[in-house]
Parts: sequence; C-alpha cells; structure tokens
Amino acid sequence: MSQLLPSALVNAIDEFGRLPGVGDRTAERYAYFLLRADPRTSQKLAETISKLHSGVKFCPKTFALIDADEDVSILYSDPSRDKSIVAVVEEPLDIIALERTGQFNGTYHVLGGAISPIDGVGPEQLHIPELIERLTNDNVQEVIIATNASVEGESTALFLQRHILEAGIDIKLTRLARGIPVGVDLEYAGQITLTHALEGRRAF
Amino acid sequence: MSQLLPSALVNAIDEFGRLPGVGDRTAERYAYFLLRADPRTSQKLAETISKLHSGVKFCPKTFALIDADEDVSILYSDPSRDKSIVAVVEEPLDIIALERTGQFNGTYHVLGGAISPIDGVGPEQLHIPELIERLTNDNVQEVIIATNASVEGESTALFLQRHILEAGIDIKLTRLARGIPVGVDLEYAGQITLTHALEGRRAF
Repeated sequence: MSQLLPSALVNAIDEFGRLPGVGDRTAERYAYFLLRADPRTSQKLAETISKLHSGVKFCPKTFALIDADEDVSILYSDPSRDKSIVAVVEEPLDIIALERTGQFNGTYHVLGGAISPIDGVGPEQLHIPELIERLTNDNVQEVIIATNASVEGESTALFLQRHILEAGIDIKLTRLARGIPVGVDLEYAGQITLTHALEGRRAF
Repeated sequence: MSQLLPSALVNAIDEFGRLPGVGDRTAERYAYFLLRADPRTSQKLAETISKLHSGVKFCPKTFALIDADEDVSILYSDPSRDKSIVAVVEEPLDIIALERTGQFNGTYHVLGGAISPIDGVGPEQLHIPELIERLTNDNVQEVIIATNASVEGESTALFLQRHILEAGIDIKLTRLARGIPVGVDLEYAGQITLTHALEGRRAF
C-alpha cells in the first residue's frame, strides 16, 4: 500500500509510528497535518526534536532532567529548597506532577524507573546507591517514597524501605497516601483502592 | 512550571503539542520517549519531518499526494487503471482507505476538503473545476462520490451532484452505500444509520 503515498510521507508516517501509543492512523494524521500546515511548523518541530538530546542531560545529584549547560538541578541548588526532605520518584516527569501541587519544598531523587523483573529492570539499574549516598551526606531527615501506585512502583517502594533499613540509616520513611481520588464515586473506586482508603482512614 | 524542565525538552513538548489531538501529557510522553531512546530515533524523526514538504507535492490531475519528482499520480498514469470511473474523495488519505479494499480499479479525484461554511470552506476552494474538466476530457462514464458520511461530506456530495447536472454532463453518478458497519449490533447502530440501512436495503 505504501507505494501509493510519496516516500517522504511514508517515511514520516513510519517514524511517527515509533512514538509510544501511535498507531498507523495516528501517524498518518500527524504527517498529513504537517503537510497541510505551514512548512515552518514542520521545520520547528524537526529542529526541536533534533536538539533534544544535545540540550538535555541528567542532574548528577538528583537525576532530574536539566539543561545541558547546567551543573545541577535548580530544585537541588536552590537554597530555599529543604534538602532534609527527599521525594523519591520513578521518572523525571514525576517531579513536574509533584511541583504542580505547590505543596512540596524538599528536593527530589529520580530512580530512573521501577523494579520490574518482566522488563529486566532490577534494583542495580536504578539510582539507589546515589540515593543512599545523599541520605548520609546531605543530612536527610525524611524520605518520601513517591513511586507509582503500580505493581512495579509498590515493589520498588518495599525494596527501598528494606534497603534503607538494612543500610542502617535512621531516617523517617514515608510514602504517598493511597485512597479514593478526588471526583471518583465510591462505587467506581475499585476494591484495592477502597481497601487502601479504609486502611489509611484519618480522624476529622 | 516549564522552567523546571530543560528548555530543549520544553521546546519539543511545545512543538509536539501542535499536532492534532496531542495534549500536554501526550506531548510530554513523546518528548520523554525520544529522550530515553537512541539519539538516532530522534534524528531520523527530525529528518523525515524536515523533508516532508520538499519531498511531496500534489498530483496536478487528481490532487493525490505524489513524490516531488513524479509528474502525475501512478493511480492515474497506470494504464491498467480504468480512467472511465472516478472516485471523488475529500482528502488524499481517503485514497489509501479505498485502495486497501482492493475492490476499486478506477482513478481518483481529491477535492481537498469538504464544503463547510463554519470553517469558511466554500465550493470555490475545492478542486471542482478540475473535476469537471476531467469528466469532459477523460471520457468518464461514472463518478462515485466518496465523501465522508459527515454533514460536510453530505453537503459536498449534494453540491457536486447538482453542479454536475447543471453543467449538462450526462454521466452515471453514484455514491457509497450507507448502512450498518460490519460488526455493529443493530441496537448500537444509531437512528440515522438505520434509516439509511432501511432505505438502501437490497434483495438477497
């Protein structure tokens, strides 16, 4: 079928199809949209994509994504951030989600994933040694484990808890509350969510 | 929030966000996926996008998308295609959908959209004069109007029917059957679809 379309279009559709969750139809839609739009739209997109890798690096301390010309994440270097509290997240974009709440003034530590035997990700592939180092060097008082509420996130949280205990680090270890999300009716909340909500119930 | 992310990443997210149906979260996902993937994935995507406009043009006869170095669509120039039947479609990608059926051996004519007063698209913006010219010059016997089953597609079909009649062209004018799509239960088919299915009922 593809020889029916110009090869430049087929190539773009193929490459768009590599993006996560993008099937043939969506890739066609993207490519065709660009083709109909002002050529500057495609040029701009192509440019930003090609500059992505060279413009971004990982913070050597927190493993957040930072500008290639920065030394360390501003969320770490900023003197107004409380270095004694560290929120441990799976991925760099999780930081954005937490920052959007405006309720956290500590620092972050990105693991770079979650433990997932199926995907071949073990603890040794995560930035756990660097976390342990920070806990001892930065005089950290509390670690908030903010991994996802998935099986992998849970395993990772439990692993970290055990690992920090075994390392003999005396620290306050907390994790995000699990319960009913805002706007969800009880009947749709799901059994496990409700179990968590019951277990974690609080006095008024 | 965006100053929390490296500007190269923010730029890519912004540009991805211009694609149709791509919101903030999806754009973030695309950009972050590329960042984690082999740099060649981004380079390849960037390259194909930047070559999109220069590698593609419209067929001057059928307005299908063709390679920039081709003269006319192979679906028109191919001597095995029946030039006496023309399927009129709204967009170039509709051709692919029809070709996938393997049931059509005529030629195509792309209108370049559908009549939509709300979007400011009138018949004068569509490739209708070129269609009329083909009907007379190519000795066309049948025109299959294959516009979408939307309000705009219907209006365009009716406009074309009237326009061809008024031009005094004596030709067989047909349109795609409307009815119940394969795999859909009657109770979910919708009132208008069922009305079409009843009107278009056929003997066994």
